[in-house]
Amino acid sequence: MEHDLDHTIALLARTPAALNALLRDLPEMWTRRNEGEGTWSAFDIVGHLIHGERTDWMPRAKRLLQSGETQPFDPFDRLGHVRESEGKSLTELLDEFARLRSENLDELRALNLRQEDLKRRGRHPALGVVTLSELLATWAAHDLTHLHQLSRVMAHQYRHAVGPWSKYLGVLQCAGHSSS
Amino acid sequence: MEHDLDHTIALLARTPAALNALLRDLPEMWTRRNEGEGTWSAFDIVGHLIHGERTDWMPRAKRLLQSGETQPFDPFDRLGHVRESEGKSLTELLDEFARLRSENLDELRALNLRQEDLKRRGRHPALGVVTLSELLATWAAHDLTHLHQLSRVMAHQYRHAVGPWSKYLGVLQCAGHSSS
Repeated sequence: MEHDLDHTIALLARTPAALNALLRDLPEMWTRRNEGEGTWSAFDIVGHLIHGERTDWMPRAKRLLQSGETQPFDPFDRLGHVRESEGKSLTELLDEFARLRSENLDELRALNLRQEDLKRRGRHPALGVVTLSELLATWAAHDLTHLHQLSRVMAHQYRHAVGPWSKYLGVLQCAGHSSS
Repeated sequence: MEHDLDHTIALLARTPAALNALLRDLPEMWTRRNEGEGTWSAFDIVGHLIHGERTDWMPRAKRLLQSGETQPFDPFDRLGHVRESEGKSLTELLDEFARLRSENLDELRALNLRQEDLKRRGRHPALGVVTLSELLATWAAHDLTHLHQLSRVMAHQYRHAVGPWSKYLGVLQCAGHSSS
């Protein structure tokens, strides 16, 4: 499956509304609990997505287009969401995510990227050489990895409540595969 | 974590809008592709959720309240979604899921279940004795298991497009844990 920029944008544009429909005004039992010490709640996940909008995807795309492989991307702070979300409500985070995502997609569309631009290369601080196409595809897949995580974290809260059905629910067998 | 009926209803009420926000008018690359032969696409998953609204959750709750442990639930047809979705568009399925879920939640609320009702017992054809509380908690967790599956199926479409980032994306390490 090749990367298709229109498909990527179509997905990226929908994630904020999907999270909003799922999470807004949902009881905190679902949104503020995690899977145990050092793990993330739905609230933390939205904070992480916001931090990515500010420091990860478009800043890296612009670095790649400006500097190619010569200047690596800045490392991403996986704990940056803690500062992003301090003192804020989930409602505020959902609004902020929607606004930042919309602004970033406006900026992405304004680049008018052509097929040959997508082949341009930059340097990831750990992964080495990557293409713009890979970076943008990852932006979309990263939304999905956190939707996957979010559904698992929420399902975890009913792990015991479902009684014997737990063995039929795939999400309750998911160990998380790394941190997300 | 105890089961809380209000929390269950809050989640169940939001799933149709969340799926609608994510999937409506999304390119078919995301919604009609699966993970390989015999697996489900996002389209199939919505069809399965519809089939559950018709034949699984409320029919089982009513059977339990009417017959207790004496008459087991009818077995659920895990391929029932094929008939549900035949000849329909994803837009039609999303509308149908929202309508059926709303009707079922109206019916659930009208039962005015008290705490002691939630302890009442019925019989699952394979799992044996289960409580109404477990059945209703499972209805909510089942939404989440399919949101988990959906995000994995969609991410699978970009498995190669993300290049070296694949090792950072937990959803791409998820093997599915049973069929969903």
